[in-house]
Amino acid sequence: MLNGRHLIEPNDLSVTEIDEICSLAEQIIVDPVSFQDVCRGKILAALFFEPSTRTRLSFEAAMLRLGGAVEGFSDASSSSATKGESLADTIRVVSSYTDVLAIRSPKEGAALLASKYSSCPVINAGDGGHFHPTQTLTDLLTVRQLKGSLEGQTVGFCGDLKFGRTVHSLVQALSRYPKNKFIFISPKELQMPDYMLKNILEPLKIEYRSVERLEDAIGDVDILYMTRVQKERFFNEQDYIRLKDSYILDNEKMKLARRDMIVLHPLPRVNEIAVEVDGDTRAAYFKQAKYGMFVRMALIAKLTGSL
Amino acid sequence: MLNGRHLIEPNDLSVTEIDEICSLAEQIIVDPVSFQDVCRGKILAALFFEPSTRTRLSFEAAMLRLGGAVEGFSDASSSSATKGESLADTIRVVSSYTDVLAIRSPKEGAALLASKYSSCPVINAGDGGHFHPTQTLTDLLTVRQLKGSLEGQTVGFCGDLKFGRTVHSLVQALSRYPKNKFIFISPKELQMPDYMLKNILEPLKIEYRSVERLEDAIGDVDILYMTRVQKERFFNEQDYIRLKDSYILDNEKMKLARRDMIVLHPLPRVNEIAVEVDGDTRAAYFKQAKYGMFVRMALIAKLTGSL
Amino acid sequence: MLNGRHLIEPNDLSVTEIDEICSLAEQIIVDPVSFQDVCRGKILAALFFEPSTRTRLSFEAAMLRLGGAVEGFSDASSSSATKGESLADTIRVVSSYTDVLAIRSPKEGAALLASKYSSCPVINAGDGGHFHPTQTLTDLLTVRQLKGSLEGQTVGFCGDLKFGRTVHSLVQALSRYPKNKFIFISPKELQMPDYMLKNILEPLKIEYRSVERLEDAIGDVDILYMTRVQKERFFNEQDYIRLKDSYILDNEKMKLARRDMIVLHPLPRVNEIAVEVDGDTRAAYFKQAKYGMFVRMALIAKLTGSL
Repeated sequence: MLNGRHLIEPNDLSVTEIDEICSLAEQIIVDPVSFQDVCRGKILAALFFEPSTRTRLSFEAAMLRLGGAVEGFSDASSSSATKGESLADTIRVVSSYTDVLAIRSPKEGAALLASKYSSCPVINAGDGGHFHPTQTLTDLLTVRQLKGSLEGQTVGFCGDLKFGRTVHSLVQALSRYPKNKFIFISPKELQMPDYMLKNILEPLKIEYRSVERLEDAIGDVDILYMTRVQKERFFNEQDYIRLKDSYILDNEKMKLARRDMIVLHPLPRVNEIAVEVDGDTRAAYFKQAKYGMFVRMALIAKLTGSL
Repeated sequence: MLNGRHLIEPNDLSVTEIDEICSLAEQIIVDPVSFQDVCRGKILAALFFEPSTRTRLSFEAAMLRLGGAVEGFSDASSSSATKGESLADTIRVVSSYTDVLAIRSPKEGAALLASKYSSCPVINAGDGGHFHPTQTLTDLLTVRQLKGSLEGQTVGFCGDLKFGRTVHSLVQALSRYPKNKFIFISPKELQMPDYMLKNILEPLKIEYRSVERLEDAIGDVDILYMTRVQKERFFNEQDYIRLKDSYILDNEKMKLARRDMIVLHPLPRVNEIAVEVDGDTRAAYFKQAKYGMFVRMALIAKLTGSL
Repeated sequence: MLNGRHLIEPNDLSVTEIDEICSLAEQIIVDPVSFQDVCRGKILAALFFEPSTRTRLSFEAAMLRLGGAVEGFSDASSSSATKGESLADTIRVVSSYTDVLAIRSPKEGAALLASKYSSCPVINAGDGGHFHPTQTLTDLLTVRQLKGSLEGQTVGFCGDLKFGRTVHSLVQALSRYPKNKFIFISPKELQMPDYMLKNILEPLKIEYRSVERLEDAIGDVDILYMTRVQKERFFNEQDYIRLKDSYILDNEKMKLARRDMIVLHPLPRVNEIAVEVDGDTRAAYFKQAKYGMFVRMALIAKLTGSL
């Protein structure tokens, strides 16, 4: 029962609920016109305390395509926070005007706090380095759509695996489905954290290995999940400069990959995937972005009890 | 006849018209679905030359819940003012695209000026320290809803009574209804201005008294209207620091109040009401914010001739 | 066939297509209610990488009045460009959420680049000093509406004719219709560029003359197109100060004009038209702004294949 619920972290959803949301998203993809009025008369508040255009426009398009309406703000300077108001008060008031909130904040825990005071469902649209559950749902829907199943996949994660929240969430989510294997491709400084390996994967006896070079893994994966190396995650500029280009996917490396492999990326992409790869049929990151809108449509429809 | 009219200051409305708007708001509260298409095809322009998230989102939600649409801007930097265009020209152009304008400006008189050039109704959403008529309508609807009548109430106003425009407007508005009494609770430096007492209350023989301590009045009031002590209203920092905490409502003081008293506040609240009071059933300021949306729905429906 | 097309520069449209769009706009003006649902279920993305309130609100109102929805941003600071994402990627993603894009950028060629990567029609809403085709359509519709024909008009262009993109586009557009004549009124420093005269007008044997004083031409024109002298177009401050007031239209000069002459201006107007002229029935620049909304309605309806 998703009606009235909050979505703060990916684990708030059971496997059954994830499947329910993905199935609905797939119905919407097939026949969007049947869903274009299911949120008629309802309002999404998009409260973005930091800019994130793609995520915001995806949420807004999702609500609009369901026939609902949208209001909100796109950065903190337009919010009342500047007048000293607490997040709790802002949420109490705005949630009394609207039917569902999507909240984005640079502060960890902001969405959880919001959910304590909101009179309508809260969706975490990213809270600092913490959670971004609709990205995880997007990734899962993309795998279902393009690989046919969330089971038995060999998934390579490449880039910043230490700080990348989308990677951690997706690894956890895929660990809940049988027979998936992981290959972690990163420099030593940005390896998958120990607690992920020791507390999540090993108790479940999930097969994984770590490599340093993309070339050593790309031939073995069904799915290659690339991530951005964010400058702000580095402790010093020199490390950043030395490492940022180490894990760039280009056509040369794509030659080593399977013919039915797919490349995913949460976007925005800077230079970790060469533009020449975009034309490869295995490049799936723009499709993935579009699936993000459909999975948000399904989520909003469910949480607002519209379906 | 409200169709096509502007609302610049609270006194633009007769008592009959205020009652008409509040009555419509009350019908909407009872049966919102019946009103969800009354502004279909109409557009509200929300022109906010300074940020005021809560007011803006309330206006936008009001129009959206009537089935209308919204466009606009949330601060001056996104407006054409930066290209040297006059407010008059901006208003002439934008009003030709839309059906009703809500204008917020740091400049006193901006909404009045706008109304001279607009081809559609203008609603003042706050013009500096001047007027904010939809806040007054919100307050009146809240009193009607929670106290059952706009007559015979003893109303305490606490905090900054010198500069607080919402207080002055509400005192004037309640003075038009019979048998209301006022208690003004403030430090000497922030007392109700003489012109309010001499020109408004005394000619109407309205009973009032002034006290310095909240404890000396709280037991006598049906309605306690708390206000924020705004730093920017003080002439020097020291006075602000000395006075700002003098009039804080907490559970200890709430013990002295009547069991059917209600606490109102125009929000945002900083620390003038302790968070512990939020759980008290007499704390009505979040309900008040929600009533603000309903009264704006009624107002927009009337001014645009949609009902 | 306009369905699915981009509009990057005015010459992307044939004369037949311009007439088709203007005719549709005229039908909408006469009976807007018949068109209020033609874009139901569709979304316009308004991607404004620099603020331009009037143009943005005109596009948004156009889509909303067709029953469609709008999302986007009003300046670059709210966009993902700050995270190092390329325009191409932003466009690929956003166009996958929406049905039509309006893009405004300070960079020449931005809209053209966007059209290469968009999966839906792109409308150029201004790209630096380059093109602004919906302004040209607005001007043409205004002439049709107020002068009855796009043929046989004597049109005076006054002000900055060197850098003014709207002037160049309108001159080119009107050159495609028979029997129009032009009078170019400007200081020597800001004259119509040679390539316009030599490459556009003279091969078509179009009659034109250049004068320095507005008084020497105003009596001869059917249409006077005034433009703003933009400070940022000048190479030095002194020239700007010396020239900016040279071409101000006031009631005194209006006395020299024909009784059925009309004054146009793309707006915003700073002081190149005295406010006293606004009351003259020949002042048509605010009507022109309103026609801009109607011509954008027609354009959006056509490009999205909604009609």
